[in-house]
Amino acid sequence: MSNIREVSQLAGVSTATVSRALRNPELVSKESRRKVMEAVERLNYRPNMLARNFRSERSYSLVILTPSIASPFYSRVIRGVELAAQNRGYSVLLGDTRDSLRREDEYIELVETRLADGIIQFRPSESNSRIARRTNFPIVYACGCADTALPSVRIDNIEAARAVVNYFLSLGHRRIAVICGPPENPHSIDRLAGYRRALQDADIAEDPDLIVHADDYSMQSGVKAGTRIAELHDSPTALFCMNDEIAIGAIQSIKRAGISVPGDMSVAGFDNIDFARHYDPPLTTIDQPSDEIGQMACNMLIDQIEERGVSQNNVILDYDLIVRASTGPAP
Amino acid sequence: MSNIREVSQLAGVSTATVSRALRNPELVSKESRRKVMEAVERLNYRPNMLARNFRSERSYSLVILTPSIASPFYSRVIRGVELAAQNRGYSVLLGDTRDSLRREDEYIELVETRLADGIIQFRPSESNSRIARRTNFPIVYACGCADTALPSVRIDNIEAARAVVNYFLSLGHRRIAVICGPPENPHSIDRLAGYRRALQDADIAEDPDLIVHADDYSMQSGVKAGTRIAELHDSPTALFCMNDEIAIGAIQSIKRAGISVPGDMSVAGFDNIDFARHYDPPLTTIDQPSDEIGQMACNMLIDQIEERGVSQNNVILDYDLIVRASTGPAP
Repeated sequence: MSNIREVSQLAGVSTATVSRALRNPELVSKESRRKVMEAVERLNYRPNMLARNFRSERSYSLVILTPSIASPFYSRVIRGVELAAQNRGYSVLLGDTRDSLRREDEYIELVETRLADGIIQFRPSESNSRIARRTNFPIVYACGCADTALPSVRIDNIEAARAVVNYFLSLGHRRIAVICGPPENPHSIDRLAGYRRALQDADIAEDPDLIVHADDYSMQSGVKAGTRIAELHDSPTALFCMNDEIAIGAIQSIKRAGISVPGDMSVAGFDNIDFARHYDPPLTTIDQPSDEIGQMACNMLIDQIEERGVSQNNVILDYDLIVRASTGPAP
Repeated sequence: MSNIREVSQLAGVSTATVSRALRNPELVSKESRRKVMEAVERLNYRPNMLARNFRSERSYSLVILTPSIASPFYSRVIRGVELAAQNRGYSVLLGDTRDSLRREDEYIELVETRLADGIIQFRPSESNSRIARRTNFPIVYACGCADTALPSVRIDNIEAARAVVNYFLSLGHRRIAVICGPPENPHSIDRLAGYRRALQDADIAEDPDLIVHADDYSMQSGVKAGTRIAELHDSPTALFCMNDEIAIGAIQSIKRAGISVPGDMSVAGFDNIDFARHYDPPLTTIDQPSDEIGQMACNMLIDQIEERGVSQNNVILDYDLIVRASTGPAP
């Protein structure tokens, strides 16, 4: 690659003039500017942005910490982050933590060593001590939870879960089961609270047999949890799954057990991933505004980094209940 | 954040000694080293890596150019890239091009301005003129095609497609349809060549009605193309789809038209995404070693960047035909 000295020689001006022509063209005569731009064009010169980063002590990049980039829901939020970042001149570094705190630490180190300017955290809890013991650590929680004190963008998970159960109740269902994520998962805690509130409001006593926890949010865990639901003596007529992957896995087990969906059992998911509408049957679910969550979280983070002042600390966006063929009237 | 001067004051040594203790500890006395490390620990000091990058003219980051990060197949390849990168001290910048050459150019600019050291390209063609007119541009094509001259890691798409069609033939199918990607897509060209070769070897004349092109590789396009297949007068008994999303969409249309899968029509996909085994029916497909493709492409790229010499330019990995319930004997 050509360097600034070659540009200055070809243009017949000093390197300082080249630098000014590129950064503050208004300070340079029209004629010098023309010569510099011609030389830049002919030599295909590109300024070394590492010098800018070194001088400004900024990397103009953000880290996304995600438990899994292979999650169809998170990958859509990431697209939103990435679009907003590119619009504001930032790059996005991928931090696929594979649910490991050690890997998460290695990415936080990028901010500490200035290789990234801030973090968008998808894991919905603040348990990381490296972040907790620091002040002014630029961070935004995307898809956060009700108890997040740090800046976050999310939907109201309690209300969204309640909306699913209320919808089941409106169809005449009374025995409504739920497959949660892991017990300590903050999304799982919020959504279970919503499930309980809806049942209480309808004066339905809680049946512990109808509350099952999946090992994680994967389809494979949905298959396992769905088998437990299918084997219950007193079968539920409706099942709320805390994400679409669990719902897809659960429906697979339920159908294999000879239970028809929605004839014998209605099933709903959460997130509205692309596969939801193409499953058999197409899945009733909660649509989260994934792209908007990503864009907003990114803009909030860049505002923090650029010290524009944080106007909103905790943004709650709207969700939609999408009704498809996996749910129907109680049998 | 604390700086190197504060560390040197607390340790009672010069800043040069602090710098040496951190970078070349063998050059520093044991006692000085101990003092420095204690001060680093107490002040929670982290070296400014932007200075390293500026001096070495390297960013220690790689760009992944992907048409869509939301693709379940590519996202698994990305996980592989990211794991290998982290192991070798590199970060991964996400370049979600949304199939736009303009956005792709903006990411290539990152390498030209030194903000990234090289590119892993997922789009399987070399049409980008900015890369083509440069020599020594560190790049590796992951999931490339047969005609790639630049370094690439891939499976043999022609042979894999041929294996699917040969499997259909072994089940007694003779009318075998195919849903391709867009006509100009290199994967589509390779896989169609494999389809044709298998039919030729079996002395089956090609029927143009049985070759359908989808608008892209999405489920939605699969739904549309599947409708065309379902409406054919002389119905095929087997259908090969060039990725799993197209297959899932096509099966949805085919089932809606009252055609049973695999009773009336066997359907196979390509890629073996996580959803394939959880679909109804579970999908017969070609398994690509996505994680291995990603890791190998990443290591080849870093070898180029670090000028270790490129041992292999074009790596071809093995695929597997995974037989599931979406395929069966010809009716």
